[in-house]
Amino acid sequence: MSKQKPGIPKGTRDFGPEEVAKRNYIIDIIRHTYALYGYQPLETPVMENLSTLMGKYGEEGDKLLFKILNSGDFLKDADAQLLADKQSNKVLTSLSEKGLRYDLTVPFARYVVMHQNEITFPFKRYQIQPVWRADRPQKGRYREFYQCDADVIGSNSLLLDAEMVMMIADVFTKLGLRVTIRLNNRKVLDGLNEYIGETEKNVALITAIDKLDKIGADGVQNELREKGFSEEQIEKTLHILNISGNTSQKMQSLEKLFTGEQGKKGISEIQELFSKIAHVASSTIQVAFDLTLARGLSYYTGTIYEVVSNDVQMGSILGGGRYDDLTGIFGLPNMSGVGISFGLDRIYDVLTELNRFPASASTHTQVLFVAFDADAESAALQYAQQLREMDIRCEIYPDLQAKTAKKFKYADDKQIPYCAIIGSNELVEQKVMLKNMQSGEQELLSIEEVIQQLTGRSGFVDLSE
Amino acid sequence: MSKQKPGIPKGTRDFGPEEVAKRNYIIDIIRHTYALYGYQPLETPVMENLSTLMGKYGEEGDKLLFKILNSGDFLKDADAQLLADKQSNKVLTSLSEKGLRYDLTVPFARYVVMHQNEITFPFKRYQIQPVWRADRPQKGRYREFYQCDADVIGSNSLLLDAEMVMMIADVFTKLGLRVTIRLNNRKVLDGLNEYIGETEKNVALITAIDKLDKIGADGVQNELREKGFSEEQIEKTLHILNISGNTSQKMQSLEKLFTGEQGKKGISEIQELFSKIAHVASSTIQVAFDLTLARGLSYYTGTIYEVVSNDVQMGSILGGGRYDDLTGIFGLPNMSGVGISFGLDRIYDVLTELNRFPASASTHTQVLFVAFDADAESAALQYAQQLREMDIRCEIYPDLQAKTAKKFKYADDKQIPYCAIIGSNELVEQKVMLKNMQSGEQELLSIEEVIQQLTGRSGFVDLSE
Repeated sequence: MSKQKPGIPKGTRDFGPEEVAKRNYIIDIIRHTYALYGYQPLETPVMENLSTLMGKYGEEGDKLLFKILNSGDFLKDADAQLLADKQSNKVLTSLSEKGLRYDLTVPFARYVVMHQNEITFPFKRYQIQPVWRADRPQKGRYREFYQCDADVIGSNSLLLDAEMVMMIADVFTKLGLRVTIRLNNRKVLDGLNEYIGETEKNVALITAIDKLDKIGADGVQNELREKGFSEEQIEKTLHILNISGNTSQKMQSLEKLFTGEQGKKGISEIQELFSKIAHVASSTIQVAFDLTLARGLSYYTGTIYEVVSNDVQMGSILGGGRYDDLTGIFGLPNMSGVGISFGLDRIYDVLTELNRFPASASTHTQVLFVAFDADAESAALQYAQQLREMDIRCEIYPDLQAKTAKKFKYADDKQIPYCAIIGSNELVEQKVMLKNMQSGEQELLSIEEVIQQLTGRSGFVDLSE
Repeated sequence: MSKQKPGIPKGTRDFGPEEVAKRNYIIDIIRHTYALYGYQPLETPVMENLSTLMGKYGEEGDKLLFKILNSGDFLKDADAQLLADKQSNKVLTSLSEKGLRYDLTVPFARYVVMHQNEITFPFKRYQIQPVWRADRPQKGRYREFYQCDADVIGSNSLLLDAEMVMMIADVFTKLGLRVTIRLNNRKVLDGLNEYIGETEKNVALITAIDKLDKIGADGVQNELREKGFSEEQIEKTLHILNISGNTSQKMQSLEKLFTGEQGKKGISEIQELFSKIAHVASSTIQVAFDLTLARGLSYYTGTIYEVVSNDVQMGSILGGGRYDDLTGIFGLPNMSGVGISFGLDRIYDVLTELNRFPASASTHTQVLFVAFDADAESAALQYAQQLREMDIRCEIYPDLQAKTAKKFKYADDKQIPYCAIIGSNELVEQKVMLKNMQSGEQELLSIEEVIQQLTGRSGFVDLSE
C-alpha cells in the first residue's frame, strides 16, 4: 500500500476537541429547552430509501441528494444500452436505492406514518442530527451540517405556534444573543394575493416579495412586471409592502385592506399568535411581524418563523413554519404540524464572532500528574482514581523518562491548569506538589487537600481559561 | 406524487424517545468516563474519500464499504465499454469518490496525520459516532451502528494500556453490569509461534487459536492439521492452551516455556500491565489473562482487550488493542497507540435483558397543564414558564376543545406523572388542581407550592415511572 496524503471530502469538516465542546454547548441548550416544553428525542437513520427522499425537495433537491451505490455488482440490473449511452439519470434507480437524508422533516413525516398506530397525538419530537446536500460548498455552506429541529404534528392549535416562539426566545436568551424573531403567516401572503385580485400567480408574487430584502422595492417591481402582473397590481403590492408602524399598527392597516377569506384568517391568526406571546419580547429578544417573510415558500401553510442576529450579519439563524399536510405524501392526510430548525453552524459563527462562548464550554483536563519514578507513578495511579471519584478530570503523563520541561509543556499545550508533581520527597510525605500552571505557585498538599481545593471552589472548570 | 408505503433501509433503525434516552444514558457514562481520564472529543465527517478508506479493512472490507455516487452526471467519466460490459469493479473509481466511514479508527489516523503539526502528543481522543457496513443484517448486527472509541497515540507507555482497563472497569461499574475483561498481548501469541518453532504460518496459527471458544480444542487441532502444522507443533500448541491456573500461575508457566524474544517481551508486558491494574478487579469486574484472545488479528501489536457480560450470552461488548503503526499508511510512521471501542448496541441489549436501566434514563414531561377555557390557557402559559424556569419539564394540552378524558389519556400515554388542571374556580383562586396521575389524588395548590412539591423532592424525575 502506498503512502497517501490524506484529506476529507470538500464541504465536510473535522471537529477537534475545542469545537466539539462548543458545538455541544449550543446543542445542549437547544435540547434542554426542547425537553422543557415536552418535546421528546427522535433519531432516524442517516440512509433513507430514495423512494422516501426523491420528489420531496423539488427537482433541484433531487439533484442535491447524495445517492449510495447498491452493494456488490451494482451494474447488474442496469440497462446495458443506457449504460453504454451514459444516460446517468435513466440508470440511476437501477444503481442506487438509498440516499443520505437531506433534512430532518421528511424522515420525521416518514416515521410518523410508519408508527401512526403507536403514537399519541399531538406528537412532539425534537431531532438533532446531521444532513447532507451536494451543494457547491462556500463560506458558511457545507455539504454535511447539523439541523436542530422541533416539530409537533396532529394539532392546529396556535398555542403550539406560540410555544415555538417561546422556545426560540429561551434558547437565544440562554445563549446570550440579541436577535429578532420575524413572524408571518402564509395566509397573510395569500391575502395579499386576494387583495390584488390575482389568485393564479400566487407563487410568483410571493417569490418576488420574498426577495424584498435582497433586491429592494424596485427589484420587486421589476420582477412582478416581468412575470406579467398589471401596473395596478404592482402598485397595490407596493402599497402593502410600504405599510409602516409597529406590529399592531401593521395588522390594523391590513385588517382594513384584506377582505378575502384567506387574508382575514391570516390576520386573525397573526393577532392571536401575538396575543399569546406578548410576554416574550425583552431587552435582547425582538419580535416583529414581517409581511414579506416567505422563507422560499416550501410547504408552509400558516405561521412562518425566521430569526436573525441583531449584532452579526449572517442571514437567518433559524427558520420554520406550520404545514397542513406533511404526511399526506406517505398516506396519512390532514395532519397539521408546526416546526422550527436552529442553524447550528451559523449560531456557532455568531457566538464566535461575538466571543460569547463561556469558559465552561470546554472539557479540558484539570490536573496532570507528573511522576518522577515508578513508585511515584504507582502513587499517581491511586491518587488519580481518588480525583476521578470526585469527578475531577485528570491524567498521568505516561512517559516517565520524558524531560520535565516536556511534561509541563504538555500541560500548557492542553491548557491544563494544575500539575500534581510526585518525587521522592512527596512520596515520603504522602503528598503531591500542586503547581498552578498560570501563576507558577506550588504548594505541598495531601490528595484530600487537593480535592478540597479543586472542588471547594465553585465553577472550578472556569480556571481552565 | 403518488402515495407510498414508507419504510427504512434494511439493517437501519429509528430510535424513538425511550430508546434515544436509554442510548444517551450509556453514551453519557462512556463520554464522562473518557473525559475523566483526559480524553478529548473528536468528530469526523460521515463521508470520507474512498482513497482514505479502501485497502484498510482487507478485500472483504472494501466490499462492505457503502460508496456514494458522484454528483451530477456520474457516468460521464466512466469507460463506455466497461459500462456496456457491466464491469462494476472496474468502473467503481470513476463513479464514486466517497464512502461512508467503516470505523472510527481510520478516520482518527487520517485526522492525526492531517493535524500532526498542531497536535500535542501523546494525543488522547474519544469519538462516539455511527459507522456503516454493508454486511448482511441479522439479529444484533446492523448496517448503521454506533462505535464509542477512545484512542491515544504517540506513546508506548503501558500506563496507557492500564488506564484503558480502568476506564473499562469504571464504565461497567457505573452501568451496574458484571463483566469479565479479557486481556492478552500479541507478542504472547508470537511467543507461542516461536515456541512451536514455526514463524512463517503465524497468522494461520493465531486464526485457529482465536476460534478455540467456538470450535474447541479438537477443532483447533483439526484446523492446524489442515494448515500443514506438524503433529509435534500441534501437540505443543495444545499443551500451551491447556495451561491452567490463575493469571499469575499462567504467566509463570509461560515464562518457563517461552525462550524466544517476542514471547519473553509479551510475558513481561502482560506482567507489568497486571501489576498496574491490581486494584481494578472487584465483586463485579473480573480481569483475566486469556492467551487465546486474538480479536481476529487485525493490526494489534501489543495488549489486546475484550469484554464479555457475565450474565448474558452476547459475544464481546468491547474490543481493542495496541497498534504500532496505525498512521504509517498515511505517511506518519512509528506512532504507537492503544485504543478501545464499546459496543453500544450490545451493551444496550444486555441492560435491557437484565432490566438494568434506571428510571432517570428518560426525559418524560413532568407536568401537563389542562386548561378549560381561554383565560385558563393564558394562566397556564404563565405558570408553565415559571415551572420551566425551575427546570421542570411541562407542556400545555394544546386543544382547548378536546374532551377532558382525551387530555388525561394523553398524560397517561406519555407517562406524565402530574396534571395541573385549571378551571374557572382555580382561576379565581389563582391556583391549580394538581392531580397525581398514578394515585388519582388531587390537591389545590398555588404554582409556588407546585414548584415546592416537585423540586423539593430529590430525584423527582424518578416519579415518571
